[in-house]
Amino acid sequence: MTAGPKGPHTGSDTRLRLRLLFGAEAMLGPGKADLLEAISAEGSISAAGRRMEMSYKRAWSLVDEMNAAFRNPLVLTSRGGASGGGAEVTEAGRAVLAHYRALEAVVAEAGAAEIEAIRSYLRDVSDGK
Amino acid sequence: MTAGPKGPHTGSDTRLRLRLLFGAEAMLGPGKADLLEAISAEGSISAAGRRMEMSYKRAWSLVDEMNAAFRNPLVLTSRGGASGGGAEVTEAGRAVLAHYRALEAVVAEAGAAEIEAIRSYLRDVSDGK
Repeated sequence: MTAGPKGPHTGSDTRLRLRLLFGAEAMLGPGKADLLEAISAEGSISAAGRRMEMSYKRAWSLVDEMNAAFRNPLVLTSRGGASGGGAEVTEAGRAVLAHYRALEAVVAEAGAAEIEAIRSYLRDVSDGK
Repeated sequence: MTAGPKGPHTGSDTRLRLRLLFGAEAMLGPGKADLLEAISAEGSISAAGRRMEMSYKRAWSLVDEMNAAFRNPLVLTSRGGASGGGAEVTEAGRAVLAHYRALEAVVAEAGAAEIEAIRSYLRDVSDGK
């Protein structure tokens, strides 16, 4: 599976990507949201990184940023052990992810008319996809 | 003036940035929208680039991308001449920009509750800004 453009579908081949900036630093966007989902599914940061075609270093760095930005960590890890360590998305992580996905949904719906208006100015995008 | 984080304010110090992806290629986000505004104000792509602390090459490249993606060019330029050439945002450019800004506004409003919910999980962001 190759990594496609992220963000929710908004009809036809149009996607809307949302990035939240909090103050000067904390940031939440499609990459971190997808990473939280992949960690949930894989139970491991390195496996989640592989699934997203992201380096181990990059995946850890995004997790560190999220854990630093939020009051409670979004991801807990255990290093070593028989299983080689694992990772778990916390309750706070699941809540933040759910709100981000809900945000994507309300925004896609609320913005549909303006997005369609912008689309109407595009060259015909009929590349068979 | 330094370039701050782009995107509309959504209350307190939170910003929401929107990027539209059309098919595999065409893309419209805060950088291009701000560039259109700067070209309108400056009447020149190079002056608009300077205003945005963006290289001349980068500003031209974004304009070329927009003009290729939309049915009618969003920016018209005249090279050379006594004035050294200028640039103008077309009617299509103004319309696309207006729809993008309207999209930012409806989205910020529609998403306010979810954004606030995510914010409530953040560490206290009181960096005096």
